Formats: sequence, C-alpha cells, structure tokens
Amino acid sequence: MKGSEQLGRYKAVIAYDGSEYNGYQVQPNVRTIQGDIERALTRMAKNEFVRIHGSGRTDAGVHAKGQVIHFDLPFEIDEKGIQKGLNAQLSKEIRILSVEKTSEDFHARYDAVKKIYTYKVDMNDISSPFLRNYTGHHPYSLDFQKIDQAIQHLQGEHDFTSFSSAKTEVVDKVRILYEISYYVDKTNNILTIQFVGSGFLYNMVRILVGTLLSCGDGQLDVDQIPVILEAKDRKFAGKTASARGLYLEEVVYH
Amino acid sequence: MKGSEQLGRYKAVIAYDGSEYNGYQVQPNVRTIQGDIERALTRMAKNEFVRIHGSGRTDAGVHAKGQVIHFDLPFEIDEKGIQKGLNAQLSKEIRILSVEKTSEDFHARYDAVKKIYTYKVDMNDISSPFLRNYTGHHPYSLDFQKIDQAIQHLQGEHDFTSFSSAKTEVVDKVRILYEISYYVDKTNNILTIQFVGSGFLYNMVRILVGTLLSCGDGQLDVDQIPVILEAKDRKFAGKTASARGLYLEEVVYH
Repeated sequence: MKGSEQLGRYKAVIAYDGSEYNGYQVQPNVRTIQGDIERALTRMAKNEFVRIHGSGRTDAGVHAKGQVIHFDLPFEIDEKGIQKGLNAQLSKEIRILSVEKTSEDFHARYDAVKKIYTYKVDMNDISSPFLRNYTGHHPYSLDFQKIDQAIQHLQGEHDFTSFSSAKTEVVDKVRILYEISYYVDKTNNILTIQFVGSGFLYNMVRILVGTLLSCGDGQLDVDQIPVILEAKDRKFAGKTASARGLYLEEVVYH
Repeated sequence: MKGSEQLGRYKAVIAYDGSEYNGYQVQPNVRTIQGDIERALTRMAKNEFVRIHGSGRTDAGVHAKGQVIHFDLPFEIDEKGIQKGLNAQLSKEIRILSVEKTSEDFHARYDAVKKIYTYKVDMNDISSPFLRNYTGHHPYSLDFQKIDQAIQHLQGEHDFTSFSSAKTEVVDKVRILYEISYYVDKTNNILTIQFVGSGFLYNMVRILVGTLLSCGDGQLDVDQIPVILEAKDRKFAGKTASARGLYLEEVVYH
C-alpha cells in the first residue's frame, strides 16, 4: 500500500440495468449509477471520496452493457479485488465486468474514439411483460426498404442538430455516424438496431430510432431526411423513442 | 347484454413477469396476479365481483408465459373487448394473450392434463444485470453427462414427496414427469431446462432444478437419486432453486 500522494488510476467496464435508476449522473437524493459506484469505491478507499468519470451519461431507464469509467484510488488495490469488492457491495443491477490499472492520463470520456449503441424494439402486437423495461414497443408493420433508405441518408458525417434534444449544450453538433445496421429476431419479433459513431449528442440515438421507425411505418417520407438534416432544428425529426430500449454497448479507445 | 342469471364462462391465456408480485394467489394488502386481474374484471363487470380460477398458483418471483385462467362474467362481453380492456387496465407486467368463450363446465385447474415449466440458469461468473429477475445464478461448471443420468432417474411416474416442499398439503404425491430436456445458449451462457409433467407439487420444479444442478456440479452423487425418491422426505433432495428462473410455460387441456 502506497501513500495517498501516489495515485493509482483504474479503468473499469461496467454493465447496468437502468430501469430503476435516475440515469448515470450523480444527483442528490435519487439512485444513480455514478452515485452507487462512488459510494462503494469511497468505502473501499477507507472513506476518502472517490470520483468516477464515465465515457458519457446515460438517461433514466437507459442500459449499458459496456460503459467505461475511470477513477483514481488513494492507494493501490489489486484489480480483481476492486472488481469483487464492488460487485459484492453493489446492487445486482450494476455489474463490474472488468477492472484494469491504466496510465495516469487515461480519460474515459476524452479518449473515447468511437461508441456503439443498440436499440431494441418489441414489434409484437401485445408487448412482452418480460421486455417492458428492455425494449421500445412499436406494434406497427415496418417497411424495411424504407428504413434502409433512411439509413443511407443518415450514415456519414453530418450536423445532427435536428437529431439532438434542444437542451443540448455542446456547440459543435457535427458527428460521424459510421454505420447503422439492424437485425430482426423473427422468433420473438424483436428488432435490434445498432449505431456506431464518433460520438452522440443528447437523445441522438433515441431520435434517430424514432425517425427510422416513422420512415418504416409510413408516417414520415424518407426523402424528408436530407431536409431534416439541413433544417438543423429538432422539431423536424421524428419522435424520441423510449429510453427503455437503449443500450450503451461499447466504448472504443485507441 | 344478457341478464346476470345468464353466465358466460371465459378461458384466458396470460403471461406475467412475477418479479414484483407476491405470487399468483390473492392475499390482502399485497400485489398479486389474481388480485390485479380480479380487480380489472370486476370493474369491467360494472363492479359485480368476478373471481378468477387459475390452472395453479405460482410463487412470488415466478413468471408465466402461458398461465391459463377461467372466469364467469355476469353478462357477455366480446372476447377481443375483454382482452383489450384488461390489457389497457393492467400493469404491463401482466398481459392477456388470448380470451375465448368456453363451455360452462370448463375448469382451468381440474381440466389441465399436462403442464410445461421451464427454468433458466445464468451460468456466467458475473451474473447479467438484465437477467437477475429472470434466471437462477449458478456460476459453477456443470458435467452434463451427470445431469443426463439424473434426468433418466427422475423421468417417469414417481412419488415426488422428496421433491416437494414439506408444506405441501396434497395427499397423493405421485406425478408423471413425462420429459426433462434442456439446451444451452452458448452465446449467453444460459441453460434452459424444460419439465413436462402431469402436474407438479409445491416447489417441485425448483427442487428438481436444485438437485439437477447439484448432480452437475458434483455436490450430489447421481446414484443417490433413486435413494432420494425412495426416502419420501424433502430433506434428502437438493436445494430449492431461486423462484426467479422459473416460468409456467404452458398448460395443456384435452
């Protein structure tokens, strides 16, 4: 064990079921992913407060299968020991998938070069009781050719102002959407859409999903997508799909 | 609409996520599947109390994908109307999958000739946060040859006293276990075990699962199974597996 001057920086990959959480970011008096993990780590650090830094926030109800965080501990602890200690303390809604010691200048948010999100849609007439917290429900028939066309318009580098919440505070709203792909689990009638991008604005994936579904069910004309992108105004795009179908799947670093 | 003398009997197939319910059977002051459905039906019957009869009870935390109930309404209502009306009123944790008018003497419990249960086991070292309410967690390596042998011993007609809760009130504990089968989803490391039987005693599937897993991980010698059956004493069999992995899959009628 080293003195508290000697920081150890750790990178952890975490998964969580966001159904019963008020989102990732710490807030007073409510359950948050960050709050729960900081509390557990602080206890592990003998009550010296430990701040965690995530690759980004996720909203209330949004899930993660591969969120990345980093944190400094006042003394070195064995990586496996941190993982086991946290998993023992935390609710089973949060699991620490891995912990590794990393360089002192690693930053979970600034060093991320790519993110992958998935969105699951329950297309059954009667929604599954088991998927109510894990899918958006869209019981209308979809024309996947229209969705393919919409995807062609959306992929690439664009100013995604129209596809982000009007509350977004960042100035530069240009992002690269490397790929949108999807597959249908026909047995269960579940559509999974995957988004790979350089980064995502606030609510961006959920608005993209809402827009793709509107193109698929005929509510929105696919030819409107370039017009919507050009307008740089949130009110032109489709609805914001429910948080419950959204998963932060992976954060990629160099 | 007919007078209240003229009963209409309906059969419904329902699915539910039992995670946040105190089981199927109605009890005062707690959330139950029966209680919620009776309340919704009673409202639909203009506050004339409607009792529902299930094929059997399920415990707190246990799920159903194909539970069957029957009930009488004081006047005829269109089947689709009952289904839609119930689904609109009920929590999304319960879904009415179908409603059909049935004969006046149909009984969901007494007429059932076969039941199918499944049990899901999360075999990952670190339990999935998304499956915490939908699987039992068993992170120990399993010898499936041992499980196959145990299944051979358990299938068939037996007195299952050793495989039922000591609290069971029924006298005749002979049941026919037509088939136990399983498959492993290797991508997600999930084991699903299916039980088809003439009927099941209280906690029977969960004790069978606990016993099969104990045979698989080496805690219990497979050759003990005939001895356990013969003993007719609950304390000889394996642990009762968690309620959370159990699903009433289907109820079969003639």
